[in-house]
Amino acid sequence: MLSQKLLIKNATVLTMESSDSIIENGEIAIEGQYIVHVGIKGTLPAGFLPEKVIDGTDMAALPGFVNCHTHAAMVLLRGYADDLPLKKWLEEKIWPVEIGLQREDIYWGTLLCCLEMIRSGTTTFADMYFQLGQAARAAEKAGLRARLSWGMIEKPPATFLGKPPSPDYILEHTRHSAKKWHGAADGRITVMLGPHSLYLCPPGFMRKIIEIAGCLELGIQIHLSETIDETEAVRSQYGKTAVQLLNELGLFEIPVLAAHCVHLDQRDIEILGSKKAGIAHNPQSNMKLASGIAPVADLLQAGAVVGLGTDGAASNNNLDLIEEMRSAALLQKVVTMDPTVVPAFQALSMATVNGARALGLGSEVGLLKPGYKADVILVDLHKPHLYPRHDLVANLVYAAQSADVDTVIIDGQVVMAGRRVLTVDEEEVMEKARRCAARLTG
Amino acid sequence: MLSQKLLIKNATVLTMESSDSIIENGEIAIEGQYIVHVGIKGTLPAGFLPEKVIDGTDMAALPGFVNCHTHAAMVLLRGYADDLPLKKWLEEKIWPVEIGLQREDIYWGTLLCCLEMIRSGTTTFADMYFQLGQAARAAEKAGLRARLSWGMIEKPPATFLGKPPSPDYILEHTRHSAKKWHGAADGRITVMLGPHSLYLCPPGFMRKIIEIAGCLELGIQIHLSETIDETEAVRSQYGKTAVQLLNELGLFEIPVLAAHCVHLDQRDIEILGSKKAGIAHNPQSNMKLASGIAPVADLLQAGAVVGLGTDGAASNNNLDLIEEMRSAALLQKVVTMDPTVVPAFQALSMATVNGARALGLGSEVGLLKPGYKADVILVDLHKPHLYPRHDLVANLVYAAQSADVDTVIIDGQVVMAGRRVLTVDEEEVMEKARRCAARLTG
Repeated sequence: MLSQKLLIKNATVLTMESSDSIIENGEIAIEGQYIVHVGIKGTLPAGFLPEKVIDGTDMAALPGFVNCHTHAAMVLLRGYADDLPLKKWLEEKIWPVEIGLQREDIYWGTLLCCLEMIRSGTTTFADMYFQLGQAARAAEKAGLRARLSWGMIEKPPATFLGKPPSPDYILEHTRHSAKKWHGAADGRITVMLGPHSLYLCPPGFMRKIIEIAGCLELGIQIHLSETIDETEAVRSQYGKTAVQLLNELGLFEIPVLAAHCVHLDQRDIEILGSKKAGIAHNPQSNMKLASGIAPVADLLQAGAVVGLGTDGAASNNNLDLIEEMRSAALLQKVVTMDPTVVPAFQALSMATVNGARALGLGSEVGLLKPGYKADVILVDLHKPHLYPRHDLVANLVYAAQSADVDTVIIDGQVVMAGRRVLTVDEEEVMEKARRCAARLTG
Repeated sequence: MLSQKLLIKNATVLTMESSDSIIENGEIAIEGQYIVHVGIKGTLPAGFLPEKVIDGTDMAALPGFVNCHTHAAMVLLRGYADDLPLKKWLEEKIWPVEIGLQREDIYWGTLLCCLEMIRSGTTTFADMYFQLGQAARAAEKAGLRARLSWGMIEKPPATFLGKPPSPDYILEHTRHSAKKWHGAADGRITVMLGPHSLYLCPPGFMRKIIEIAGCLELGIQIHLSETIDETEAVRSQYGKTAVQLLNELGLFEIPVLAAHCVHLDQRDIEILGSKKAGIAHNPQSNMKLASGIAPVADLLQAGAVVGLGTDGAASNNNLDLIEEMRSAALLQKVVTMDPTVVPAFQALSMATVNGARALGLGSEVGLLKPGYKADVILVDLHKPHLYPRHDLVANLVYAAQSADVDTVIIDGQVVMAGRRVLTVDEEEVMEKARRCAARLTG
């Protein structure tokens, strides 16, 4: 990559370092992958001669959103099965289609997902699905930052259709993928291990995965305490909660990203808080599948690092982090009956800096700060639904929509300008994904 | 108004008569204010020669959204006070500003609200605020269909700042406004009486309002059982619930639009169901103010007519019905722990046909059907987040955003085309509203 110099000027800059870190008429200087300066107009270091200038007048500049949990290529099943009980949804609709997934489906599905994420201001995502190499190719092409894992199931449920790839096969592939992809695309793409969940990956297997993760110096993504059924099954089988058992197995001693964490007891919350575990909260998916309401206010209180995820588009049904932060704030207020809980800045932090921390990327992205990677979005504020402008953060969290995102920069590269995505052919991606979906469900 | 002939062709038409009333490659013929034909391509009556043709290729045509509860000009206070306890929010932030509201504030505030509603596909709204005449002027100008009321308070709370206009003054003004505005703008604008709530309008006063409503043949808008505090206060003062007391007073014998209905007992639900009361459910406002979760699934089961509202933008913070229908569905699923509750078509019905019924306009708007007023929106489906297209209704309810609304027709008049609003100068409205807000809060 050329070390291009880029300047964003005249923007209202929200660095996300604190709720009052808002710079009116601010400027951001970017060199290559990195932010080299953030300040008020006129503070640009002498000698910084930008090759490209982006006018941020009437726009807010903030760190790109971080989607902490998705199954990217499931976007092919958006709207394919809704309003169903979880068991029926999985066994009669999702699994029968997933056994037919080809490599090209993963590539085009992930690319459609990336396209939607770029258009809604997401610059980094964590993925757990199949064919990691195809997902990596798509993320590389689209220009996104990605933490990728290949979901592993040691003990498929009795109702599982077909035969999932053996954990050994996936582990071997993950090792291979890690060699090829960990740190690829100038460091944008990194690999994690993806044991699906404790209930599908029993303790013996989990112990092995945790060892391998330590040995390969890779983090782990896992589903944790998403539904009541799985939570009760784990407790009745092992006599303790999934969090407590996984803690004994040493999971929280390595970098971990735990998705959902809906059904927790007080001890679970203490463990997740004291271990500073990365948690992907997925409010809309948890609501839509009727999984439950995660105790986010308590987790935050306990010190856990809570980011936001969309989950797969088959259970959401979009990849819109602005909606997730709004839902996260609103849902916690009503469930605690306290309107002061999860205020706007905290919700925005979950979608940016805390999401980055939950993914183990907290020293790299999530803030607008010299030395950080240049993952920056510009949100167009000149919209009727963003007037008047009493409070920028409240407007972004409680009133904005993803179509307000005008410009997206990832790793110093402009991937969307004026709502035109520059890294992929949008028409081609929609058409190819449409064809994959039609073949899969036809 | 000229009796213009308008044809929408090549659209996917969702008439909302039933979940399978979807016409691929459909056409809608409009003459003057009315829909005169809805059918598949090639079924247009001979002799219908449109002066204007709208190409609906790759778009869904559906009835415009109905916003059953808002305080339009409160949009001036969007983002002015968030994440606060209700009492502090009202007493320290909202009321002190509201006593300074001038007629021009109501006009420009309502116009900004109308602009945002048009841009998000809302074609009809119910409003309760001050200076009904100014709100009516704004709705007339913007081209929206509106059910307007001037909020009445007989017994202001002890903490109320200043002196609200006396109920007699407002009643006199409402009579005057009804003469001037009821049925104005070719019938788009109608007037209702607006007693704020039982706790601010005690039984003696309510009885009088109900009599006057009957005499003037006007409906009533009222806030009903929104918070726990008010619900408990009413019960402790009168020994019964607000619904039961208002039922005894005869409220449900006349057309009524009851906003919120969050805290209800079983008997309340039976009354509201058997009386077919119009209910404005405001999920995002109820969540954000931590008011509670309305028992919508039970109300629907009991036969109540439930539409959706945004409430004022000071407590939401936008006027986006697509978000409300998504939130309504998701919230009911998670609170009942049943993902089959409020499926997508039911949520879309609440935002359209059932909203129209809740407002007493069910024989006029809410369906795409010959003889109905031509309130039609076109939603652009050619967006990455709306691919693939397994299920149109699911995509609209669970994945779409208001910026996908491309064209809005109200009463046969094209008020937005290609996202350009034709009835007002958008720049002027934003700037005038900004100035009003600055003066009010400065």
